[in-house]
Amino acid sequence: MARIAPLSGFPEWLPQGRVVEQHVLDVLRHTFELHGFAGIETRAVEPLDQLLRKGETSKEVYVLSRLQDADPAGQRDRGEKQLGLHFDLTVPFARYVLENAGKLAFPFKRYQIQKVWRGERPQEGRFREFTQADIDVVGSGDLPYHYEVEVPLVMAEAFGALREIGLPPVRILVNNRKVAEGFYRGIGLSDVEGVLRQIDKLDKIGHEQVATLLVDQCGASEDQAKACLALAGISGSDTSVIAEVRALAESYGALTELLTTGLAELEALMVAAGRRAPGVVVADLKIARGLDYYTGSVYETVLVGHEQLGSVCSGGRYDTLASDGKNTYPGVGLSVGVSRLVSRLLSGGLVTATRGVPTAVLVAVATEETRPVSDAVAEALRGRGIPCEVAPAPAKFGKQIKYADRRGIPFVWFPGEPGHGPADAPATSGTALVGSVKDIRSGEQLDADATTWEPPAEDLHPRVVPGSGTGQ
Amino acid sequence: MARIAPLSGFPEWLPQGRVVEQHVLDVLRHTFELHGFAGIETRAVEPLDQLLRKGETSKEVYVLSRLQDADPAGQRDRGEKQLGLHFDLTVPFARYVLENAGKLAFPFKRYQIQKVWRGERPQEGRFREFTQADIDVVGSGDLPYHYEVEVPLVMAEAFGALREIGLPPVRILVNNRKVAEGFYRGIGLSDVEGVLRQIDKLDKIGHEQVATLLVDQCGASEDQAKACLALAGISGSDTSVIAEVRALAESYGALTELLTTGLAELEALMVAAGRRAPGVVVADLKIARGLDYYTGSVYETVLVGHEQLGSVCSGGRYDTLASDGKNTYPGVGLSVGVSRLVSRLLSGGLVTATRGVPTAVLVAVATEETRPVSDAVAEALRGRGIPCEVAPAPAKFGKQIKYADRRGIPFVWFPGEPGHGPADAPATSGTALVGSVKDIRSGEQLDADATTWEPPAEDLHPRVVPGSGTGQ
Repeated sequence: MARIAPLSGFPEWLPQGRVVEQHVLDVLRHTFELHGFAGIETRAVEPLDQLLRKGETSKEVYVLSRLQDADPAGQRDRGEKQLGLHFDLTVPFARYVLENAGKLAFPFKRYQIQKVWRGERPQEGRFREFTQADIDVVGSGDLPYHYEVEVPLVMAEAFGALREIGLPPVRILVNNRKVAEGFYRGIGLSDVEGVLRQIDKLDKIGHEQVATLLVDQCGASEDQAKACLALAGISGSDTSVIAEVRALAESYGALTELLTTGLAELEALMVAAGRRAPGVVVADLKIARGLDYYTGSVYETVLVGHEQLGSVCSGGRYDTLASDGKNTYPGVGLSVGVSRLVSRLLSGGLVTATRGVPTAVLVAVATEETRPVSDAVAEALRGRGIPCEVAPAPAKFGKQIKYADRRGIPFVWFPGEPGHGPADAPATSGTALVGSVKDIRSGEQLDADATTWEPPAEDLHPRVVPGSGTGQ
Repeated sequence: MARIAPLSGFPEWLPQGRVVEQHVLDVLRHTFELHGFAGIETRAVEPLDQLLRKGETSKEVYVLSRLQDADPAGQRDRGEKQLGLHFDLTVPFARYVLENAGKLAFPFKRYQIQKVWRGERPQEGRFREFTQADIDVVGSGDLPYHYEVEVPLVMAEAFGALREIGLPPVRILVNNRKVAEGFYRGIGLSDVEGVLRQIDKLDKIGHEQVATLLVDQCGASEDQAKACLALAGISGSDTSVIAEVRALAESYGALTELLTTGLAELEALMVAAGRRAPGVVVADLKIARGLDYYTGSVYETVLVGHEQLGSVCSGGRYDTLASDGKNTYPGVGLSVGVSRLVSRLLSGGLVTATRGVPTAVLVAVATEETRPVSDAVAEALRGRGIPCEVAPAPAKFGKQIKYADRRGIPFVWFPGEPGHGPADAPATSGTALVGSVKDIRSGEQLDADATTWEPPAEDLHPRVVPGSGTGQ
């Protein structure tokens, strides 16, 4: 027997942890659907040539080969396309849009919750297999700016709904590529992508080193580098940020048309966010997302008090999410790193599930012969939506109660007419459905009828509630 | 731009198809949870040596390699385990049980709904990537027989709940390895696995050829082969089947202890099934599942009228689902082939979704300046659980209605105080939340208040309903 051990970077949860993850997924799905996003799934694999189109990340692709044919070259010789596992949900979505363009109605709003794979070195919050939950809106030909306002507000609502289980507050940090590009060009820098790439490193290597890199690698003067860092230093949660950027640009004579457009967009976002999600959205001019091909708004999201975890929800606007030569499909979207979020919630003890099983009631069994009586009780309870299971064996009732206790099942049902032995009533008679039910937490035991009794609403399903941990 | 084309064997659904699949998954999950099964997920990959333990299927494994390191041998040289994608959910579940045995409570009831991959030649109903929905009960050391009765009845309930959307009736075909093995040994055949493998081919190659193979490959006499085929010919949905098998065995002097035990088990299953799922469970003595290591009950499930699709839900009892040398974990489980089921429901036109978007209400936009009024209406509706979206642009109302119509959205909301223009009320005032709502199917338009109006319950979410197709 081979030794069984976890694989680093491939997280798995115990049933109680999965209750937490499932709750997070249910809240995300519910929120996305309330906003009219249609759920789709795409296959896990894409032809390798498609995956390699997205620069950096492609180094981390897992390539597939069939065992009978372990040499991928053999496959290629037979004209089969080499396949790899998708590393995000954007590349497959773009392909899905092109493949089905004639059958979709645009603007097309979709959500997609699936696993993705990256062969990176695993670290805290960085996995080789993880779940993403994406929303995107994609247009055919054009896509109005207001969707760049909508998508972060949908996410703000989802994160808001997760506050009650113990999720720390989030800050959605927003910027606009037009502001950055407009400013850089206004002060005379033309290597916009290069500058963004350096600014992206601010949190990691600090101001001084970024300034040096801007001078050495992007052809900036010291004064230009200083201006870039001044822009990156601006942040705030109201529209005063807009005035600040405008003033900075004016002081450099850099108020380009592109910058003006970008500032108007950013202002519209801050105004709507101030009304609909006060305090959640923060304009942060150093957000660069340097490795992605965004053309308007860009977003990152941090958990307050857990900033070192990195972004838990990122995205932005692409003018060309996809293109088939004839048509261009601009899009805007955001992607929640569900595994990163859930692993922090669990490892930090920030949340806990009231139980790891769906079962609200364990129906005890008096003897193996009267199991059908217990089955009938369980069936009556389930018929009214109450999750229950029947005890595995007619053990002493103390042992059956312990079975429930170990699993966090709050109630144990003892079949049998009150005042009579548990097995007196035949399974087919109505009296089989009366008995008594014990709340094993309080010890309270009451006569009950399986056709009418209900557990308190808060005990019906496992709940996810704040834990004792600080997660720091 | 590379040509975009579907990959054979990797099915994807349009949004409307995904509504159907999601409904099937929701019904399965709900049923499993009502019966106390805890949901878990396992990683998509397992070490190759684990995957190769399960004989036949292992030829179809997809092996992973990282792109930077396309030669799997390089990985091995560095001591990294070679990984493959799982081809079912049983092998990973067995590993999960061993890995977490100390933290799980036994008997452990779990459900698991995930994708699996097999590099087979794609055919109708046979995919390279597909979704399985499994339930298993696993014990530590022992597992009472009554779980072999429970699991098919849980599935019968799930399939029953899917009847209302247009799923044809199912027949869950059951057999018991102890019956088969007891009978074969009773008539003097010792190559039990060999006989099962031949009997498994009955539907494909017919009686005559199977008889020849039993003689040629399993050392059977013609009379023994005849006896095996006579046993395989017995089937029925009540306990008369038990008497029939007993009579056959007695006529051959083959009523072994093992056969008697098996018949008692099969009888218990038929009695319970007759009570709890009348007509659904059929004892069928030719069910062999020859390639799997079952030791008690075995199950296959056919859609009535679609038998040629093959089994849509199979499984059985393993005495050794997993073992770590010290402990043995017997299990019993069933696996629904969700993709096979859904692809038939869709391709046969057996079901249809009332719409492909979650949206129940499209809130119209009069002018871009009054979009916040429409946003406020949408927020009020969503606050009461009504999925809605706001129109993409302040186009003519006819065009906005067409937007809803194309997507199957039943209602369009026109903001504005009744009798006034749509933009008269400021977004912040209560009057902004009154307006009128049009059922675009009937054309009926009524004044409404977004804080109180509700769509009819049947329009709140997309529904899955029987389609017009026969699917034959």
